[in-house]
Amino acid sequence: MKKIGVFDSGVGGLTVVKEIRKHFPHLDIVYLGDTARLPYGDKSESTIIDYSLSNTKFLLNFDVDLIVVACNTSSAIALETLEKKFCKTPFVGMIKAGATLALKKTKFKKIGLIGTRATIMSGAYKKELLRMNKDVEVFEKATPLFVPLVEEGFAEDEVSFIVAKKYLSPLLEKKIDTLILGCTHYPLLMPTIKAIAPDVSLISSGRATVEFLKENLDIKANNKKGSLEVFVTDITTHFKEVAEKLLQEKINLEHISYERMNGNEN
Amino acid sequence: MKKIGVFDSGVGGLTVVKEIRKHFPHLDIVYLGDTARLPYGDKSESTIIDYSLSNTKFLLNFDVDLIVVACNTSSAIALETLEKKFCKTPFVGMIKAGATLALKKTKFKKIGLIGTRATIMSGAYKKELLRMNKDVEVFEKATPLFVPLVEEGFAEDEVSFIVAKKYLSPLLEKKIDTLILGCTHYPLLMPTIKAIAPDVSLISSGRATVEFLKENLDIKANNKKGSLEVFVTDITTHFKEVAEKLLQEKINLEHISYERMNGNEN
Repeated sequence: MKKIGVFDSGVGGLTVVKEIRKHFPHLDIVYLGDTARLPYGDKSESTIIDYSLSNTKFLLNFDVDLIVVACNTSSAIALETLEKKFCKTPFVGMIKAGATLALKKTKFKKIGLIGTRATIMSGAYKKELLRMNKDVEVFEKATPLFVPLVEEGFAEDEVSFIVAKKYLSPLLEKKIDTLILGCTHYPLLMPTIKAIAPDVSLISSGRATVEFLKENLDIKANNKKGSLEVFVTDITTHFKEVAEKLLQEKINLEHISYERMNGNEN
Repeated sequence: MKKIGVFDSGVGGLTVVKEIRKHFPHLDIVYLGDTARLPYGDKSESTIIDYSLSNTKFLLNFDVDLIVVACNTSSAIALETLEKKFCKTPFVGMIKAGATLALKKTKFKKIGLIGTRATIMSGAYKKELLRMNKDVEVFEKATPLFVPLVEEGFAEDEVSFIVAKKYLSPLLEKKIDTLILGCTHYPLLMPTIKAIAPDVSLISSGRATVEFLKENLDIKANNKKGSLEVFVTDITTHFKEVAEKLLQEKINLEHISYERMNGNEN
């Protein structure tokens, strides 16, 4: 395992890349943020599948050994299609990884889940959690304002606190002890969510992915420092700034137009 | 003038359609909401121009006599390109219409402007206002959270009130007497904005467009009730519901995939 591909609709998937680089620094990573077509979370299933297919085709041009679908919406809606269509490539989705870690952490088997509307409506997390443990109770809430709040720099503002309180109250009333942050943007709201739910274990996709990779794949670490290539389908105002702040390293952003990407059929 | 085409990135442009239907009920309207690729407001200029070109090409298939670019972001960034490329078709953009009405309303020549990041950064409104009247003062503020707040049903929630107060305070300190709502979603926040700025004249794109059409085009009204065809590039959860509530009439939603739309070269 030398090179992995990672895609997300935007900058959020870099929270997963950050964790992967921390634990497997030797891996070469090719990242694609589909910023020309983000956000995915309120779009229809067929559109999300189309976009996920074209992202995957693009990453396969780089001969990656594995693809991490670092977008919960894509993982919930498109993973099965990707695995069928590209059956030689192993994929890691956020749902199985997140569900596995949540079941490890929960004491009272009351798990909360927040995500985009598409992720919640898919029922993918709930199905996976119940498949692994039929005694667990799952309480779900779509939290579609969290992504724009993060992207607009309101993550640590009182507005996010009020919105988070509205969104989380019904879950806290159910006495959840674990909360899956079912969207790669949400770790950036961690301090706000922790302030509202101090006793709840928070499960981030990045941490869950690393645990999943450790348990399921034979990755031999070495001392080489892996490369990171970051592609976006649109050069937007904040991507580079937010990405570098998040990763705490300088990145070289490359632009691939979504039409050119769609032409990369293989 | 019988049939007009109208496009926007999503549902917001229907606030313009509503005003047009109120004042020119005989016109047939073909509307396109590019919901598969919304929002436009944080994307780059070249991407916004690409999307606007493909929307225009799609509408021209319906032999429309005029195209209303009911998206402030497209109007600010892409209108000139559209007018050059499709020189036989008249276009009405939101900028000129909004600027004209704002200059009519302002008493003290202090005009505020809110819009998406792309609209504000383009400087299009400010340039147009100063071209028409060099003595006017323009105070601008990008308000990118307004669109998701509207789309997520928070328009009349305290959260919108807090966000709007944060966004509008610096403009109100400048003693603006007129405020251009430079995004077709914003009229849905009118009650909130009015509560914060009760003495300010609010200029909506819909109202401004109707005034502009009345003054600049020879539209002969008749008693026929015009048709309304609504196309979207993605069938999303709320579109139909929000659209019907807004228009106060039933609509028949048709889906056109963005790939098929891009194939409609003419």
